[in-house]
Order: sequence, then structure tokens, then C-alpha cells
Amino acid sequence: MLENTERTELNTLGEFGLIKHLTQFIEIKNESTIKGIGDDAAVIDYKGKQTVISTDMLVEGVHFDLAYVPLKHLGFKAVSVNLSDIYAMNATPKQITVSFAISNRFSVEAMEELYAGMMMACKKHNVDIVGGDTTTAKSGLVISITAIGEANADDLVYRNGAKEGDLLCVTGDLGAAYVGLQLLEREKQIYLESPGVQPDLGGNDYILERQLKPEARIDIPVLLKKLDVKPTSMIDISDGLASEILHICTQSSVGCNLFEEKIPIDPSTYNMAREFNMDPTICALNGGEDYELLFTIDQSDFPKIKANPDISVIGHMTRNSDGVNLITKGGTSHTLTAQGWDSMKRDV
Amino acid sequence: MLENTERTELNTLGEFGLIKHLTQFIEIKNESTIKGIGDDAAVIDYKGKQTVISTDMLVEGVHFDLAYVPLKHLGFKAVSVNLSDIYAMNATPKQITVSFAISNRFSVEAMEELYAGMMMACKKHNVDIVGGDTTTAKSGLVISITAIGEANADDLVYRNGAKEGDLLCVTGDLGAAYVGLQLLEREKQIYLESPGVQPDLGGNDYILERQLKPEARIDIPVLLKKLDVKPTSMIDISDGLASEILHICTQSSVGCNLFEEKIPIDPSTYNMAREFNMDPTICALNGGEDYELLFTIDQSDFPKIKANPDISVIGHMTRNSDGVNLITKGGTSHTLTAQGWDSMKRDV
Repeated sequence: MLENTERTELNTLGEFGLIKHLTQFIEIKNESTIKGIGDDAAVIDYKGKQTVISTDMLVEGVHFDLAYVPLKHLGFKAVSVNLSDIYAMNATPKQITVSFAISNRFSVEAMEELYAGMMMACKKHNVDIVGGDTTTAKSGLVISITAIGEANADDLVYRNGAKEGDLLCVTGDLGAAYVGLQLLEREKQIYLESPGVQPDLGGNDYILERQLKPEARIDIPVLLKKLDVKPTSMIDISDGLASEILHICTQSSVGCNLFEEKIPIDPSTYNMAREFNMDPTICALNGGEDYELLFTIDQSDFPKIKANPDISVIGHMTRNSDGVNLITKGGTSHTLTAQGWDSMKRDV
Repeated sequence: MLENTERTELNTLGEFGLIKHLTQFIEIKNESTIKGIGDDAAVIDYKGKQTVISTDMLVEGVHFDLAYVPLKHLGFKAVSVNLSDIYAMNATPKQITVSFAISNRFSVEAMEELYAGMMMACKKHNVDIVGGDTTTAKSGLVISITAIGEANADDLVYRNGAKEGDLLCVTGDLGAAYVGLQLLEREKQIYLESPGVQPDLGGNDYILERQLKPEARIDIPVLLKKLDVKPTSMIDISDGLASEILHICTQSSVGCNLFEEKIPIDPSTYNMAREFNMDPTICALNGGEDYELLFTIDQSDFPKIKANPDISVIGHMTRNSDGVNLITKGGTSHTLTAQGWDSMKRDV
């Protein structure tokens, strides 16, 4: 989808030249960034706060398909998914490092697009690019990003603090990124079979945006602070609701009852899932890439969050021995697995 | 060269299973590691010290050739080269994150070897593995490591502090890793042409070790502290002496006179370079991968370092307008470039 009229080969700049070219417009915005790009290492000073670090690797053909992902969106997404991990600690991202391995299939202009998307995400989250590495690859594109953030020790929220009786909450809605991906895959197949046919993506802006340009929840740690709610545990949803609930339950040694009817699903997600003959609940449970925050709160905090349209209470934590269960709309209980639940036994 | 009798396919474990399997023996040793692997992010507390961060990406076929690099050595080297950047800031590494993209060509046992090498390096440098990412790749192996360390703000040494009159110093000796690589490449070619012939690597332990298992200079920041010397600038030698001198000169806005006869070259490096009809000085200037530290000191500190057998004074910094020059053994001066110097004009 990328249309560049110019093409400058990567080897015309060389590694140092390319880095200099791409990073020339970087402005350091955070006081905590003592030294950015240009030395053996970056230097950061959080003045006594704790440092939070997370890293992700994205591989062409595994995590993204450039047949339908514009490079600028890819750059934006690559940064956003890393920052999401920092927000999931109830922390504030401040810096990232960015490494690429790129084949000569890519031009300087293509790298500019990718970098522009990264810088867009950085601007949105007030994050500085402070380092990285750029190297050649024999084929394809690999992106590795490390996000660094700060938090007061008291504010940090881990996965292991949920306790029996806590309420399970999720932000936003789920499953959209997954059905967005199905739509993109379908249109790609149609295009491959009949190259003359234009992709039919109209009217599906929301689910496409959720797949191509997900937003990390910068607003949630701020909102929770404002509401005076400190979650007892928190995780971001990258692999799907089911998998993340299981992480919290395992690490917190609790069980969970999740109520199918409470899972927030946007109508456009619901309709597109149905168009694909998929169960919308399964899309929400296993689809992943939502980058919403899943967290548990003490029951006494319920009044503080109940009026918030952006937070849904979807279940509650139980004794470890009670297991992790999905209570279906039909009222029956099924053991939840990382693949959702055993749909062969489903009573619908 | 890796000989494993067993082969367990990666997909038998899955991503979470593989991570769990590989990280099961990790023990957190540093007090600053508040939270290691297992949450959305790691948490670090340097108690008011500054945080130093560096990252590197290594790509199969570009940075390493598994035809002659054992995976355990590769793991050791991948960690060491990252820690080298932290030492080059005069800081102390404390944590790393480790990400891989791996094709199914690799077995679980192969990943165990790689990880074992990484853990060996971590043990040596008292560094904790606190996070990472593991993903599949369509082909090959990509390793991305981020090293995190601490320093008092006053102890940090950047590339931009060298001034006219400072002495240029280097640790250890140079060029060995490069001639070691030439030797490995030669034996690989011979093996490919006559698979029955065993590689002839005997008697070259030093240069092979320098290429396959380089040691990051953990001792140098400690030594400098003991000698009461704070360098005015410092960098590690990854791309070759010439390139690193130019980095210091550019960032410090100074010139430099480098004396060929002062460049420390081990006799085994010298002899092997000659066997390859290469100029040993060129190997030292451009070979790279030495992971020694290059630094400048005030002239008044010379008495403190002059008796140290592990530090060589190889030149001095001049006015910016004097340029960056190599003074050859023959006494003539040549402008230094990142490719060494214009050897066509050489007077030998």
C-alpha cells in the first residue's frame, strides 16, 4: 500500500548514515533523558523512582504482513504494544530503544515511513527514542523495541496481587483487532486471486484501526489515580482475554469466574465475527492484540469505577481450588483454557 | 560443531513453555532487580543512581556464522558485547533483557546451548536476566539484547569530553578478533571444498578465543577508580580503532595524532596477519570486535597509568583543525578514515 515515488537504496547511506538520517529530527522531551542517541549507551535519571523495562520483538511474516500493513502503521503499532506493557505496570513510559534488522528489499524511504510511525507514537505518549541498533538482514524485517518507564514503588501493579473476592475489570472492548485481521486476510486472498479487484474495506474503520493502529492505554493509569483506585493486579491483553486471565490467576494463586455476557464487544466486532461464522466471544477470549488493560480491584472500590463507561466488570476472583471458569450466557460453567474453553462441549 | 544426541522440536514446548524451560535456572542476584521475568515488565531500583541502557542486535549470516560458531560461544559473546557498551560509559551492568527470533531449524537443545552461554556471561559479570521475548522466525536466528546498568552521575564518561593535549589510551591488544575470523573463514572454505579434512586451528587459541568468546572489560572501570583516573572520554572498540577514534574526535571536536608503533598488537595476531598477507596495523585499525576500551585522560594522570601493562598510550588529542592523523612507523602522517587510512598512499 506504500507508494513512494523515490527509492534510495539503503547502502547509499551505510549504517551510521542511515541512523543519522532517521534520527535527525528526534528532540529529547523528558527531563529524565540525560543522554539520548550518540554514545555507547543512553543515560536516564528517574530521581529515585523505580525503573520499569519491557521488550518485544516483531518479525515480518510472523507478526505482520506488509501486503496490508502500511509501514507507518507498523512503526506506530510496534511502539504502542511495547508502551502497553509499561502501562500494564501502572507506570509511565519515558524512553524507548529501537533496533531493526532490514534486508536491502527496503529503501531509505521505506525506513523513513516506519520511523515516522514510531515517532508519531512517541509523540503521543511523550516518549524519547534514546538508542537502538540498525543492521542488515538477509531477508525480511525484524523490529525489537525496549520500553523504559518510571513509577513510584507504591504505584506499581504486578500480576500476582489478585485475591479472592476481587472484581475482574477490563478497559474498552475486545476482539476487534482479531476480526480486523480476518478481514484484511480475506481481502488479501481475494486480491491475490483477482489482482484487479479493489479490497472491500469500507465501513469497517473501527476494527481495521484496532488491528493496524492500536492505542496503548495511556489514559488508564491516570484515570485510576484520579478515581483513587489501585488495582490489586494488572496485565495488558496481547494474547487474548483467556490467556491473560490465566496469567493473573496462576501468579496470584486464585480462581476466577468470568461472565460471558459481561465481556465488552463492539457491535461492529460482533457483526464481522458473525459474517465470518465465528463466535464473537471466542474472538474476544482468544483473538488478542487488543492492548486493553485487564485488572482486578478490591470490592470496596466498585463504587469508584462503576459509572465509568470505559471500564467493564466482567467477573470476580474465587478460591484457587474453584478453578478458572467461563459462565456462559446459557448459565453453564466451563473451565477456561488459553484456547478459550472447550467449545466442543458448549451447550449452544 | 554442536553435537547433541537429542533433538526436541521447538513447537513441542510452545512460546511460554520454551521461555519457562530456558529461564528456570535463573537466580536473581542483584538487589536492584525488584522484579525479573514473569510480569509485563521488569522493575529495577538503582536508589538514586543513574540508569545506563544499551542495545544490540545480532543476525545470523551477518554477525555470526553457525558453521564455526558454537551456540554456547555465541550466547556468551552476544551478552558480552552489550555489557561492553555499559563499561564504556564507566558504569556497571546489572540487568539484561534477551529476545530471540528463531526458525524451527533450531531445536530446544540448541536454544539451551545458546542460553547456557548467555548465563555464563551473566554469571561472570554478575548480571540478572530480567526479561525478553521469544518468537518464531521464518529462517535463521536473530538475537536482540538490551543491557541496563548503573552509575553515579559523576562517574559517567561520555564520548564528547576529550580535549586538546589529552592522552589517547587503549586497553589490551587489537586486531586479534579480526585475524581469528579470517582463520575460521579459511578453514571453513577448506572444509567445504574437502569435507574429509579436519580444520587446522591448533596453536591459535588466543586469536580464536578473541573472535569466538570476547571478554567485556569488567576490570577497567574498577581499575580506573583504583588508580584515581577518570577518563575525559571513553568508547568500546567494536568497529575498529580508527572508527572509534573518529567518534571521539567528532563528538569532542578535537583532532588526534595516533602513533602506529604504539598500537598494541599481540605477536600471534601479528604472525597470523602476515600469514594472510595482511598489514597487522590495518587489522588493528579496521578489524573491530576487540571489545577493548579506548579512552582519553588528562596529561596530569599519565603517571598513574604508565606502569600498567594493560593500558597503552597510543596518541594524543590535538586541535580540531589539525585533523585525525596516523603517524606511521616511517614517520609520515596520514589522515585517518573509518577505513583506516588511504593505504594506496602508504610509504612502505
